[in-house]
Amino acid sequence: MKSNKNHSRRNFIIGGLAAGGSVVAGQALSAGDAAIIDKQPWSNELGDGVDVRPYGFPSKFVSNVKRRNVEWLTASTESSVNFTPIHELEGIITPNGLCFERHHAGIAEIDPTQYRFMINGLVEKELVFTLDDLKRFPRENKIYFLECAANGGMEWKGAQLNGCQFTHGMIHNVMYTGIPLKLILQEAGLKGNAKWILAEGADASAMTRSIPIEKVLQDCLVAFAMNGEALRPEQGYPVRLVVPGWEGNMWVKWLRRIEVGDQPWQHREETSKYTDLMQNGKARNFSWEMDAKSVITNPSPQAPLNHARGHTVISGIAWSGRGKVREVHVSLDGGKNWRKARIDGPSLDRSVHRFYYDFDWTGEELLIQSRAIDSIGYVQPTKDALRKVRGSNSIYHNNGIQTWHIRKNGEVENVEVS
Amino acid sequence: MKSNKNHSRRNFIIGGLAAGGSVVAGQALSAGDAAIIDKQPWSNELGDGVDVRPYGFPSKFVSNVKRRNVEWLTASTESSVNFTPIHELEGIITPNGLCFERHHAGIAEIDPTQYRFMINGLVEKELVFTLDDLKRFPRENKIYFLECAANGGMEWKGAQLNGCQFTHGMIHNVMYTGIPLKLILQEAGLKGNAKWILAEGADASAMTRSIPIEKVLQDCLVAFAMNGEALRPEQGYPVRLVVPGWEGNMWVKWLRRIEVGDQPWQHREETSKYTDLMQNGKARNFSWEMDAKSVITNPSPQAPLNHARGHTVISGIAWSGRGKVREVHVSLDGGKNWRKARIDGPSLDRSVHRFYYDFDWTGEELLIQSRAIDSIGYVQPTKDALRKVRGSNSIYHNNGIQTWHIRKNGEVENVEVS
Repeated sequence: MKSNKNHSRRNFIIGGLAAGGSVVAGQALSAGDAAIIDKQPWSNELGDGVDVRPYGFPSKFVSNVKRRNVEWLTASTESSVNFTPIHELEGIITPNGLCFERHHAGIAEIDPTQYRFMINGLVEKELVFTLDDLKRFPRENKIYFLECAANGGMEWKGAQLNGCQFTHGMIHNVMYTGIPLKLILQEAGLKGNAKWILAEGADASAMTRSIPIEKVLQDCLVAFAMNGEALRPEQGYPVRLVVPGWEGNMWVKWLRRIEVGDQPWQHREETSKYTDLMQNGKARNFSWEMDAKSVITNPSPQAPLNHARGHTVISGIAWSGRGKVREVHVSLDGGKNWRKARIDGPSLDRSVHRFYYDFDWTGEELLIQSRAIDSIGYVQPTKDALRKVRGSNSIYHNNGIQTWHIRKNGEVENVEVS
Repeated sequence: MKSNKNHSRRNFIIGGLAAGGSVVAGQALSAGDAAIIDKQPWSNELGDGVDVRPYGFPSKFVSNVKRRNVEWLTASTESSVNFTPIHELEGIITPNGLCFERHHAGIAEIDPTQYRFMINGLVEKELVFTLDDLKRFPRENKIYFLECAANGGMEWKGAQLNGCQFTHGMIHNVMYTGIPLKLILQEAGLKGNAKWILAEGADASAMTRSIPIEKVLQDCLVAFAMNGEALRPEQGYPVRLVVPGWEGNMWVKWLRRIEVGDQPWQHREETSKYTDLMQNGKARNFSWEMDAKSVITNPSPQAPLNHARGHTVISGIAWSGRGKVREVHVSLDGGKNWRKARIDGPSLDRSVHRFYYDFDWTGEELLIQSRAIDSIGYVQPTKDALRKVRGSNSIYHNNGIQTWHIRKNGEVENVEVS
């Protein structure tokens, strides 16, 4: 080093911390500490070489990091939902083993050699493809969030569930590899009156959704990989539809058929489900896009603030179905004052963003909130503002601001402030 | 749709394909096909709901996608290496369960509550931290490749191993979450004569490497998460060092101590190992940076070209320890002619890039190669060009161009051309 000034601790400025402030009081090292560290068993005995499995697993010390369901939510495991433990995760990638999933007729187990993918309806040539056929088309790789429209649905009537895994865990964010559906439709040849497609799943629920052709030609993918490897069975192995920024129910799993038509099909999942009953008794339908949203994942009810006063990391995630997240703000006082959070890691179109707010906790009670502003300038609203427009009959598309109450002892509770 | 022209198949131009060309001959759909598809068992029986595990696994149909070792390479499983199946992967993210790993004394199993991290040497205050202490520092999230300096080492003497998993599989690419080591050192207070650090692992091999302080202060991370979750045991749970762009051996796993000093320690792993014996009998040391490199992963010896003539996807990965990959070129004739490949997915600093070359295979024999050009303009060399400078004694830092010979029957072999 030529000079000490490049790494002086006086230069230290980050997040909400003052210049020259101390971050964390690590303990002064004593001779006793060093002796203890030197005697730890893992430093003195050969580790287990056999433990390196051909396909690896997490450490036994993190067995609490798992998907969880809400037992009363569905009648059987054949129709169920398992939530992502977002309070245990870092960064923006959700590991495949922890991605939330919703299924309607169990997990279909599809033999890839018997798998077939059909295009029919308003096309010049109706076609059928094997999985190997599909892999001869040009591919794309995109990191996108997938959020269920019902994420937060149980909170419309007020604070219900004590943990962000349950209030906000119907989301994951992975890199998809797939074929632009546009290319496959071009192979079949769209007829002039082609205005909609129907995507159909191969599981026993035969999930179907109508999607306008403009969206399909813009960015929908027929995906066969997530985070580098084959889709997981509960995510639609071997093939699922990717509908960037739009509600998760449309991302049809175990995709077996695309029908091309001139109008929407008005099937069950776009009429009796996935519509929003307004206060006047009429329902809003085709509310496809996921609005900008954010949540603080740490601290949160499942992840209390279990350390002494002083430097504290507030961490959370934000996303928008309409583009990137431009800014995230954090409040410590229930929305009276807002400070800009630090967005860290790749900022990608329709992908989860990670944000941090680093501050010194003095031990007082806090009402912590976050709000996202996306690249089209939309600001995440309060739950009250949402209810004012949408009424109180809704289930889907709750993107209201979440509040966590931090007690003096560090415990955290799901609350609402008005 | 207002007009047919937006989605006419005549508009289709991508990769090496001519305008108006057909991509893939999907078969014409017959009534028989439709009936078969409709009768498939997974469309007619409830799937298994119990199969959604709290922590999920890949489909049983992809059990061939796994890490593999080379049996004769090490004497025991306590000192071994397990290679990433890069020929089975897509995109740029390596799933944690498939990340290659090299260990020297088995896999240490560290109890996170007993874990300690020490800073000693040329600092104002020697410090010791628990894992919880470390998590109070501000965090960063970065996608970086980690490549062993020995990746490709067995190929210095000519084509040896028949599969890119073995020739190039000592690499993975994940999102790390960690603390800039700079911030922890600022907490301890570097002394004016601090010029190097020693990073030390807590496993029984007590892996140690010297790193210059400039690199440490620039971008090294003390990482505790990969791809969103805790580090895997074989990747250093609970804490490893991240040394972006530099050889993997320096990314000390099970990190327990950083000592600050005024000169390198000249330990085993930077003298008898990880040095490059040149033709004149002298060894080059401290060859830390990983040079630009690429390899075609499909087709390759473990992934033959098992389809008929016609549209074919060539896929591969490229990376550089000095920045981004600016271009990748592909040759079909052993390096005589080069065409620009399509880089797809995020292009990030010192991260793996995915490239494609889409072309119509006429069934002839091919000698396929790729070469990377990085953001500082460095061009990946041929193996012969490398040998001319470095001689034939080397083990580490082989970034020469790889050649695969595609036979008429689609089988692929590792060969060299001069």
